[in-house]
Amino acid sequence: MLTEMGKRARAAAQGLAKASHERKNAVLESLAAELHGRAGAILEANRQDILDGEKSGLTPALIERLTLTPERLEAIAADLRTVLQLPDPVGEVFDERLMPNGLQVRKQRVPLGVLGVIYESRPNVTIDVAGLAIKSGNAAILRGGSETLRSNRQLVGAIHAALEANGLPADAIQFINDPDRARVLELLHMHDYVDMLIPRGGAQLHAFCRQNSRIPVITGGIGVCHLFVDASADLLAAEQVIENAKIQRPTVCNALDTVLVHRQVAAGFLPSLVARLEKKGVSFRASGTALPFLLPAGSSASELPASVTPAADGDFDTEWLSLVLGLKVVESLDEAIEHIAAHSTAHSDGILTADQANAERFVAEVDSAVVYVNASTRFTDGSQLGLGAEVAISTQRLHARGPMALRELTTYKWVVTGDYHVRP
Amino acid sequence: MLTEMGKRARAAAQGLAKASHERKNAVLESLAAELHGRAGAILEANRQDILDGEKSGLTPALIERLTLTPERLEAIAADLRTVLQLPDPVGEVFDERLMPNGLQVRKQRVPLGVLGVIYESRPNVTIDVAGLAIKSGNAAILRGGSETLRSNRQLVGAIHAALEANGLPADAIQFINDPDRARVLELLHMHDYVDMLIPRGGAQLHAFCRQNSRIPVITGGIGVCHLFVDASADLLAAEQVIENAKIQRPTVCNALDTVLVHRQVAAGFLPSLVARLEKKGVSFRASGTALPFLLPAGSSASELPASVTPAADGDFDTEWLSLVLGLKVVESLDEAIEHIAAHSTAHSDGILTADQANAERFVAEVDSAVVYVNASTRFTDGSQLGLGAEVAISTQRLHARGPMALRELTTYKWVVTGDYHVRP
Repeated sequence: MLTEMGKRARAAAQGLAKASHERKNAVLESLAAELHGRAGAILEANRQDILDGEKSGLTPALIERLTLTPERLEAIAADLRTVLQLPDPVGEVFDERLMPNGLQVRKQRVPLGVLGVIYESRPNVTIDVAGLAIKSGNAAILRGGSETLRSNRQLVGAIHAALEANGLPADAIQFINDPDRARVLELLHMHDYVDMLIPRGGAQLHAFCRQNSRIPVITGGIGVCHLFVDASADLLAAEQVIENAKIQRPTVCNALDTVLVHRQVAAGFLPSLVARLEKKGVSFRASGTALPFLLPAGSSASELPASVTPAADGDFDTEWLSLVLGLKVVESLDEAIEHIAAHSTAHSDGILTADQANAERFVAEVDSAVVYVNASTRFTDGSQLGLGAEVAISTQRLHARGPMALRELTTYKWVVTGDYHVRP
Repeated sequence: MLTEMGKRARAAAQGLAKASHERKNAVLESLAAELHGRAGAILEANRQDILDGEKSGLTPALIERLTLTPERLEAIAADLRTVLQLPDPVGEVFDERLMPNGLQVRKQRVPLGVLGVIYESRPNVTIDVAGLAIKSGNAAILRGGSETLRSNRQLVGAIHAALEANGLPADAIQFINDPDRARVLELLHMHDYVDMLIPRGGAQLHAFCRQNSRIPVITGGIGVCHLFVDASADLLAAEQVIENAKIQRPTVCNALDTVLVHRQVAAGFLPSLVARLEKKGVSFRASGTALPFLLPAGSSASELPASVTPAADGDFDTEWLSLVLGLKVVESLDEAIEHIAAHSTAHSDGILTADQANAERFVAEVDSAVVYVNASTRFTDGSQLGLGAEVAISTQRLHARGPMALRELTTYKWVVTGDYHVRP
């Protein structure tokens, strides 16, 4: 069954690769309008998905991720319009050079071909991926989670209507309607029809894809994210950034997991941070080096604030996806960098500092997809970083790192033009 | 055993990532000098590999590929000096932008980390890969063929001497000395220590890597290459290009495999081409559409020139790696493009034409790693296209396509600098 989908996707991709910039933009415009026009049906399908999810005991984090609201639907449509206004990467010419022998050499961007995307919960992924795929001339086969099947059917209906209204094949974006997990393995073996595989889900899904896929896999979207409060940081501003990074949307991968605090400022910073965030419902896992700063002088561990628990093994390797925050006091920038090297998933890590030299060392030595100086980790997002949207946030090293959008869905060919040149 | 190699490579990579441009260049300079100084020992080891290879019945193509000569050794050293003069990609800043909210966003190139390279025969790969890896700040684990073990031991000795003479760890370039094939599978599972896997060998090796690797694989280096002689081509110049593409070095992947000829010029072109190339030892596999042009009028197939055989099933899907050339007469540019889509390995394909519109259509519609207009396919080579050398010629679509060298051995990180920015 999937093989047939693959063949149809391959054929649709060839048409899409030749589609004009204007036609692809018209599809995105139509899709934004369809989302608006079908909002009632989409939100109703989503409401049923949420009810079913609650019945079947999905975690609050998952429920939150699958929830659509009129505002979120508007935001998704707005992202489509942003993508629409970005330049089309297909056809872009770069690295032109004239060789000493007169050969003219250039590179020219072309679509990747067919994308396979496996995701859970968040139905906005369906639209983000479809919009970016169409604009970059790629076809896509989507495999959403069974918990959002109703929402996704509605959204895919809107996508197909938008494609067909503009004379492009509905097969360009196909959706695997069958919730059977065997389909995932089948998809991973379709290297003749799928050029890039993007799993968006937990560590288990990534490991499964890495082990079984015969298609190149983009792994990512798992963030154990750090902010290091350096001795020179503006402490009040640092509190605000940490609050934003932790609570603005705790269920997503760029939310903060661990705060590292320089010992010199720990006494002045940690109690105030804890007092501020516990009011917002945050609880803490504190390292042995942080605990003393959270106790009244001379008191014992039993007198810790109710929101604070001593950190257990593995806590600093956990992506919380909830209102939990790790706290650790470090002796130096070096120790902060070492902790990040040992525990980060190389997604988003930052330093809060007024010291330019420390900022530069942090940027040079922390090798994460996105490295921050004095900003919230929540900015790791295609829309926030100017890409309009994203198909994934890559934490692997090949092809693309961090938010992936239009250009990251292309490859290139070399074009070499001569005058009947031969190699000596 | 390989795990220990992996750990040492990872540690060496961290040192190499921080090494200055000058120090890395000094290693390349030392290595070129070592190759010169050790030429006698290297050529003697190579001579023994060749003798053993002949005894064990290696094909002439393989023997040719593993052979070093003083000239080839000089060419390898010259390539090192070319690479030395190229800009260091590490640290390069690109895609800088200032977001409307004041966030400063940029990308910065960093080394990939540790490369795994599995190859056969050609010992120049050892030096090319080492030079490019060192210059781009990467460590590498090399797995050469057992048929070149002696040559490679000598070459790796030169690499280690060059690294250590410049205060860099010999572990940066490690060589798997054990010819046991179980080591290959072990290497493919080392995703904790190896960031990119480059198999350089036949289709079987590529399929094995794609099925078993948990590391991202760059496949390539298999070329079923085409030249299409359009009706408007300069026929004499076309003969020269085809001769060059077929016989200049027939055992390598960018050598020509199939000539497609427009029917309008077949009568004037094919007999002359065959007469010219059969003198150079080329034999031909001709399609049913080409055969009539190679027979005297009214004669039967038994009167074909001795060098010409009717093409059998699969001939047009064969990478010949020898002095065999496929011939096919096509009705049109469209048929040529269709034949290439069906039979090319998307390595190197070209058109010979005086018609600008046809050249443009060919370039737009043939989606190969390198597409040529009026030039020999033999130019698909890092050195020929200005990259100094190459670690591979990729025919897959992710990360890089065509010749891969310094920049293709890097990835990037995003660096985002703010003034305690939070996401609204």
